Amino acid sequence: MLDHENQLEELVEEIEYLLQSKSYAALRETFLTMEPADIALLLEETGESSMPILYRLLPKELAAEVFVELPSENQEMLIVGFSNAELTEVLEELYLDDAVDIVEEMPASVVIRILDQATPEMRKSINQILKYPEDSAGSIMNMEFLSLKKAMTVSDAFKRIRRIGGDMETINMLYVTDSRRKLLGVLSVRDLLLADEEDLIEDIMDPNVVCATTMDDKEDVAQALSRYDFLAMPIVDMENRLVGIVTVDDAMDVIEEETTEDFEKMAAMLPSDKPYLRTGVIDTWKARLPWLMILMLSATFTGIILNHYENALAACIVLNAYIPMLSGTGGNSGTQASVAVIRALSLDEVEFSDVLGVLWKEFRVALLCGLCLGAANFAKMMLLDRMLLGNNEVTITVCAVVCLTVMFVVVFAKAVGCSLPLLAEKIGLDPAVMASPFITTIVDATSLLIYFTLASALLGL
Amino acid sequence: MLDHENQLEELVEEIEYLLQSKSYAALRETFLTMEPADIALLLEETGESSMPILYRLLPKELAAEVFVELPSENQEMLIVGFSNAELTEVLEELYLDDAVDIVEEMPASVVIRILDQATPEMRKSINQILKYPEDSAGSIMNMEFLSLKKAMTVSDAFKRIRRIGGDMETINMLYVTDSRRKLLGVLSVRDLLLADEEDLIEDIMDPNVVCATTMDDKEDVAQALSRYDFLAMPIVDMENRLVGIVTVDDAMDVIEEETTEDFEKMAAMLPSDKPYLRTGVIDTWKARLPWLMILMLSATFTGIILNHYENALAACIVLNAYIPMLSGTGGNSGTQASVAVIRALSLDEVEFSDVLGVLWKEFRVALLCGLCLGAANFAKMMLLDRMLLGNNEVTITVCAVVCLTVMFVVVFAKAVGCSLPLLAEKIGLDPAVMASPFITTIVDATSLLIYFTLASALLGL
Repeated sequence: MLDHENQLEELVEEIEYLLQSKSYAALRETFLTMEPADIALLLEETGESSMPILYRLLPKELAAEVFVELPSENQEMLIVGFSNAELTEVLEELYLDDAVDIVEEMPASVVIRILDQATPEMRKSINQILKYPEDSAGSIMNMEFLSLKKAMTVSDAFKRIRRIGGDMETINMLYVTDSRRKLLGVLSVRDLLLADEEDLIEDIMDPNVVCATTMDDKEDVAQALSRYDFLAMPIVDMENRLVGIVTVDDAMDVIEEETTEDFEKMAAMLPSDKPYLRTGVIDTWKARLPWLMILMLSATFTGIILNHYENALAACIVLNAYIPMLSGTGGNSGTQASVAVIRALSLDEVEFSDVLGVLWKEFRVALLCGLCLGAANFAKMMLLDRMLLGNNEVTITVCAVVCLTVMFVVVFAKAVGCSLPLLAEKIGLDPAVMASPFITTIVDATSLLIYFTLASALLGL
Repeated sequence: MLDHENQLEELVEEIEYLLQSKSYAALRETFLTMEPADIALLLEETGESSMPILYRLLPKELAAEVFVELPSENQEMLIVGFSNAELTEVLEELYLDDAVDIVEEMPASVVIRILDQATPEMRKSINQILKYPEDSAGSIMNMEFLSLKKAMTVSDAFKRIRRIGGDMETINMLYVTDSRRKLLGVLSVRDLLLADEEDLIEDIMDPNVVCATTMDDKEDVAQALSRYDFLAMPIVDMENRLVGIVTVDDAMDVIEEETTEDFEKMAAMLPSDKPYLRTGVIDTWKARLPWLMILMLSATFTGIILNHYENALAACIVLNAYIPMLSGTGGNSGTQASVAVIRALSLDEVEFSDVLGVLWKEFRVALLCGLCLGAANFAKMMLLDRMLLGNNEVTITVCAVVCLTVMFVVVFAKAVGCSLPLLAEKIGLDPAVMASPFITTIVDATSLLIYFTLASALLGL
């Protein structure tokens, strides 16, 4: 049922056939059975040339829903081709938060046209939302929500829903406000349906409302929505007046975006705001080069250490063969710890005050891992490198140096890996940036120091 | 408003004070103003000894909601302490999908007690859901949903909602089925509220229902819910009969879990199913050791390559100092590409058929990155290593070897990094496992081969 890709491919062929044979009625019928998100994908697949024709086949409301799902390049192309009347029609059908999203992505000339064609009320609301900081709850909220008064009866409430509920993004959650728009309580449409017609809203509402402010971080709001299983989170201004709501579908989008950003940062990329295939080569290059450059140049330290121990290495060249293994194992151990802690931080499972508990846990895990890896490595070096491959330079002392280094490096890497993200969070940096590449560079240099110190001591180099 | 941690800490102190002074009425009042998820956190914070007392202060319905949010160790502890009557009471209030979650986590003795105290109907449903594979939509669906018949009027539908809607997890989406439970259409409670009392359900329902089957992957279902902005996804069996729904809050949980698993796999860990701080040292060790071991042992190849070129290295020992930089840069370049592609795969933005487009894009990005890194490295080696640090072994030819290697390695790493995850997806493996550590190991070995081949050719070693 969800074999989405195959279904879409078949549909693209069907649509192209219908378009060639100019069967517009059949095309319209096909679209009517589909979800807006799928129609948008389909319009993209069939290409820019036929998009305006296909788009104009959609009935007004569906057209607006599809419009919202299109990538911004296509939205711009369509708007440029719209008559003023067509643009007004689309704007009328848009929810405010979607309109704001579109305005944010368009070039100035298109923005001016949009604001010209919007109703004065919408223009005012768009301007208001654009004023909130980029990552704030205010910037993603919808100002169209259903508010009730506490003195209303259930039957008054139903009348109000019937009158204005059609224009709201959701009526599943209803908010009770006083004459100065202060938030007094919340109730669901189910509470309303299960109550008696004469019940007062005041008596059936829940006066304990969890809400967020316009200036709260949008990611925190999305996480709270998820934690409380809410369908919408009311957003209040600094005077506790209800000004908007953030709905669960917007929260899911925020979480998806933030997760992608975390993945990107952890892989030493600057976050991009477009899907992978839609990001151009130059933008991708710009996002990737800075960290590659920084990390490459910081490898100068490992180079200096290796130069410093040049003579020791020349005296016992076999040591050199184990350096990639040591830095790899150190890097991987550190990455495991850092990624586990970064994820726990972003899910609010740990905070800085847990640092000692985290270190103690990682220390014991590292000790166990280090012992196992050291032992396995000892066996591998004696059996494979010395006996099977016949490398006589691999003496028991060399084995001991390598295996002790493995153990120390694993413990050090896990300690650094788990504490750096917590430290970053504490001092207000992004923990995700403290992930593998950064830690690998630190661990690389340190593991060489440990290695040569042990080698000097045990092998007398 | 969302300064969650500070609020909770204050509340824990307040609760402990009220508990010591035996102010049970005040405690109960405090709980009544709180969200179930927060009460659960609070019970955890105050500790196991006072948990049963505090739990018993909660009114029946709230108690069940809190119970669901507790970690399974605490659930087990509470169940063991429950009388049969108390257990029955909790079970009565649970939604089926939550009851199944609990049963799955409990040891056999507790499961038997739960099934004994459940109603025969609930027992049957639990057994049915437990039969679905772990990652299927069937295993997370809720079998309590509100179904209507197409011949009903809107006012009949309202009567039905008032009669049985109180026991349903959601009434926001209503499903229309025929006498054999086949799914005919869907409508929202808003559609119902905006319609006339005498309208037939058949006329206002949307007959184009997107649904999933019990055997679909739960992650696909969650992604589809997010894509279509649904509040619930109907789940049908193989005969297209409606058997359950997956609600948006469950979908968010699935996405969170799967994302955490992706992070873990990409950092060379086996996925765990518990939050970071709740996973014991032994479990963490078990999840981390296997990949560390595999990757450590596979570094044998890089060791063999280094041994093979031992004489070349001895002849030009300065080459050695750049090996960590080369493998670091290669690893980071590969990780960037692989993580970008893995994330795009899990968001359904790319598929295997895009492989040529992806390779072509990564090739151009790699060329740009490689040129910049090579040039920067050339400048750094000549200015810092040769002139400032006075290392005369760093000749122009050595610089050329290192910088050319950087360029080749970046291109190779990005090609491997972007294609391996796509290949993994194609042959049915998990792309996330193809992430940084795995690719780093391949790139490590290859970059050494490129390095020594170039060095042999240009330096005549």
